[in-house]
Amino acid sequence: MFFDDFENSRLENQLSGNRFSVVYRLSGDEKTAWDKAADICAEQSVEFPCRLLPPGVIPEKIVGHIENFQQENEESWLATIHFAEEIAAGEFTQFLNVLFGNISIKQGIQVAAVHPSAGILAKLPGPRFGIEGIRAIVGVPNHPPLFTALKPMGLSAQNLANLATRFVEGGIDIIKDDHGLSDQIFAPFEERVRLCAEAVHAANAKFGRKAIYVPNITAPFEELLDRAWQAKEFGAGGIMVSPGLTGLDALRMLAKKEIGLPIFAHPAFIGSYVMSPVQGICCGVLFGTLMRLAGADATIFPNYGGRFPLSVDDCLGIVTACKEPLGSMRPIFPSPAGGMELKNIREMVDRYGNDMLVLVGSGLFGCGPNLLENCRRFLEVLDL
Amino acid sequence: MFFDDFENSRLENQLSGNRFSVVYRLSGDEKTAWDKAADICAEQSVEFPCRLLPPGVIPEKIVGHIENFQQENEESWLATIHFAEEIAAGEFTQFLNVLFGNISIKQGIQVAAVHPSAGILAKLPGPRFGIEGIRAIVGVPNHPPLFTALKPMGLSAQNLANLATRFVEGGIDIIKDDHGLSDQIFAPFEERVRLCAEAVHAANAKFGRKAIYVPNITAPFEELLDRAWQAKEFGAGGIMVSPGLTGLDALRMLAKKEIGLPIFAHPAFIGSYVMSPVQGICCGVLFGTLMRLAGADATIFPNYGGRFPLSVDDCLGIVTACKEPLGSMRPIFPSPAGGMELKNIREMVDRYGNDMLVLVGSGLFGCGPNLLENCRRFLEVLDL
Repeated sequence: MFFDDFENSRLENQLSGNRFSVVYRLSGDEKTAWDKAADICAEQSVEFPCRLLPPGVIPEKIVGHIENFQQENEESWLATIHFAEEIAAGEFTQFLNVLFGNISIKQGIQVAAVHPSAGILAKLPGPRFGIEGIRAIVGVPNHPPLFTALKPMGLSAQNLANLATRFVEGGIDIIKDDHGLSDQIFAPFEERVRLCAEAVHAANAKFGRKAIYVPNITAPFEELLDRAWQAKEFGAGGIMVSPGLTGLDALRMLAKKEIGLPIFAHPAFIGSYVMSPVQGICCGVLFGTLMRLAGADATIFPNYGGRFPLSVDDCLGIVTACKEPLGSMRPIFPSPAGGMELKNIREMVDRYGNDMLVLVGSGLFGCGPNLLENCRRFLEVLDL
Repeated sequence: MFFDDFENSRLENQLSGNRFSVVYRLSGDEKTAWDKAADICAEQSVEFPCRLLPPGVIPEKIVGHIENFQQENEESWLATIHFAEEIAAGEFTQFLNVLFGNISIKQGIQVAAVHPSAGILAKLPGPRFGIEGIRAIVGVPNHPPLFTALKPMGLSAQNLANLATRFVEGGIDIIKDDHGLSDQIFAPFEERVRLCAEAVHAANAKFGRKAIYVPNITAPFEELLDRAWQAKEFGAGGIMVSPGLTGLDALRMLAKKEIGLPIFAHPAFIGSYVMSPVQGICCGVLFGTLMRLAGADATIFPNYGGRFPLSVDDCLGIVTACKEPLGSMRPIFPSPAGGMELKNIREMVDRYGNDMLVLVGSGLFGCGPNLLENCRRFLEVLDL
């Protein structure tokens, strides 16, 4: 009718038959949930009423297919939908668009799991370092590396560097910028990264340690990659980026460029995807699978029991997604954070295991007047 | 205690005293809401307990200040918080981080309004064309320009170009790619943009029209800017991008580069910010103010009454934010969409006024078997 010039055979020949799948959590009764699943198949591919499609390959192979549909509990259903690999175009941006583009604006749909095809995995750099790579850099083969942040905003670059020196002396392995430090006049990026990296190298030499400084390179689009290379040049041992601010695909780009530094993903500005149990992207997929696919070597997430509202199950889902098989991609460090104090650490390690980064920021200042003493207590909690 | 080397006078001299403000909608009773407001002041700036800050300029000027706090209704309060301009570092990414970085992961906080300072506005390119610029390009001085989409995915580049020809003949002013078309094998970017742009130019010449073709340039980080320039080179009349996929700052970058084509923002993958009335970013700020600050000339949003769940008030908020005074920034076209049909158009225009783009995609196919006839009905509804 509208598409008399369309040739099924041409399209058929362009499709490999390879598919990736997404599991969606759908709220409502069985019919409501099924209708949502059927709607997703078209909305996330052709975005067109199926009755108006030219018959043949488009409805059969371009539109998604419901491969499994089952009740999860009284209020939700799980639908596994397969999509032709080719509709993702080998692009992480378009893969995310198929996953959750338009349906991010529909009610009662949550991405519960993602299973990329081999073809899609092959297009992604994945984590360059992962757990083993970061452990090798900081020289911590078994226990959870200790992780803290330089803050508060308003300190000068030299003030922050002086803090970094004390953290290295105190036994901290990874010292990152607070995620709000970008290129403010009071601690400009270049000066800050030079001074903090120098301070950490000097303290490593003095105290026989292998600590690293991880600057925040979250930056405007044109400057992001430059800051990553500058961080390397100035002596940083890793880089941190907030994909909620730069786009998730910027994380993939950074991993792809092989800067030679592990990448730490920060959750700023991305929380809205995980703030509802029936909506958005589940914590394990967002903070685990997607960060790992994009190439993060460690993923900082808001742990339960601190300033943020995630549940124990949410957090366990993230930790699982960081480490479970995912093609040939390296497992990555989960880094629970957000108001953690020394008293929370033992429980974190008991629950998540040794393959985690123990990130305590303000909590390391709050537990006593002497920063070196506070660091020592941090180590003691971990029997170090 | 921790910050003996910190100098108040140094920081004091670096601050201009200029401030930007954000209005947050906070749910809960008065004390709960007030505590949230106080928490935001620190969480979005120093991310540090105020009692541990060095006294002086940091708590007084770097930490945000509650400038107004009032009840909105039985369930919510509005807090206006001022932040020092310098903490945004002249970067749109860091501005967004202050606006809603970590608090995107906290319950019951919604960005209700944003008032950038003059210094922040001066750093942003803003819309290069806006309503008047797009009207001049398509030669439509008064009524709402007509807008449709090339779809479904699976058609070849030539099939899509043939559709574009018919849309120009039918009187459509702006013909965009469906947002899922990126660089798929069945309609690769370069071939598609060349053929569709040529088709629109040829049809313009034949039918005496000034229609434009607007390809989707949403792409991996490394390719985004190239696709924008290619679109221009191949004869496109505008570009479309989904900032949810590329990051909002990519939109600013595109506007800054002065490609010479109006930019159409698409809402894919950004819906999670607006899916709760007490959480995230309100529709007017996200689809209106932020898109406009970043430089979109038109903002496509999911209209009420179609496939998406926004309310009339949500949509009116967007339309207002597109046109209200915002420094010296041009007003931009709101483009309600998402399952609109011919029968919805009159109401849209009555409600939003003539300064809108009337985007009907699948609805233009669904209303009859003849595409030219359907286009004519589209024009008739608008008395054209």
